Amino acid sequence: MDKGQIHIYTGNGKGKTTAALGISLRAVCAGKKVFFGQFIKGMDYSELKAVDYLPKFEIHQFGRDCFIYNKPTEEDILAAKEGLKICGEILKNKDYDMVVLDELNVALYYKLFSVEEVIKVLENRADNIEVIITGRYAPQQLVDMADLVTEMKEIKHYYKKGISARKGIES
Amino acid sequence: MDKGQIHIYTGNGKGKTTAALGISLRAVCAGKKVFFGQFIKGMDYSELKAVDYLPKFEIHQFGRDCFIYNKPTEEDILAAKEGLKICGEILKNKDYDMVVLDELNVALYYKLFSVEEVIKVLENRADNIEVIITGRYAPQQLVDMADLVTEMKEIKHYYKKGISARKGIES
Repeated sequence: MDKGQIHIYTGNGKGKTTAALGISLRAVCAGKKVFFGQFIKGMDYSELKAVDYLPKFEIHQFGRDCFIYNKPTEEDILAAKEGLKICGEILKNKDYDMVVLDELNVALYYKLFSVEEVIKVLENRADNIEVIITGRYAPQQLVDMADLVTEMKEIKHYYKKGISARKGIES
Repeated sequence: MDKGQIHIYTGNGKGKTTAALGISLRAVCAGKKVFFGQFIKGMDYSELKAVDYLPKFEIHQFGRDCFIYNKPTEEDILAAKEGLKICGEILKNKDYDMVVLDELNVALYYKLFSVEEVIKVLENRADNIEVIITGRYAPQQLVDMADLVTEMKEIKHYYKKGISARKGIES
């Protein structure tokens, strides 16, 4: 089989999106082409600027400018579904060597689309594309399908000491 | 206090150095200056190329071209001690906004230097420098000192399925 591997970074600790950014950087450094899709998120994160520095790196957001805390709106659902459609097309083609589905697990948790839809998208992907999935609450069906799963476990977190997210560190 | 925060990425799972690369990328995107020191490692990793793309990013290795499996050699110890000295100087100055001490925990595990030496280096750091420490086996004294600690826990790993490290993905 020459399907690329599926990596999942999940858990309640920090470092999931960060690890996805790191693996993207490493891939770009090795001459690979990376598509970084961010579900749920539509905020002005520092990482959006990475396109200014990295060749063969694209980042797109499929969320609104705020987190979903309770019930997702119709707009959240439409944005996420459109994002999954775009990522599905990208995964079917061979234009990218690595595709990141950032916060996909959280989109699934909020039922913005179903795990069956995601599995179909993953199964239909072209050969040799590395897929990176992040977000807490990774569903068991995706874990079963993945080749590598890391749980980021929070041992200590300074948010709890009253420091909020800082530009260029957490966001 | 305006000391920068100390982050630790530890545990047996994948994503520790990768997260450190990601947080470095994010920092650079926010206009910050990053020094990335790699202990133990002296191999030709893809991330060494990041200097070609990222402004204000430096990476240096303080290890030999192979991992330490058993007893470290005199050469390993000298390289690590020299690395700690260099990082100590960098941390004392205000030239960088973020300093990564990659695999520092592993260097401690192999007793290439002592945890007391590391604590002294950290205590003597200038204000407002974010410190990122990676590697399995983070000693309790460093965990106590840190502001944020994430354990990367291996849930599933394809090395075990017989695939070795691939350029631009793991190395």
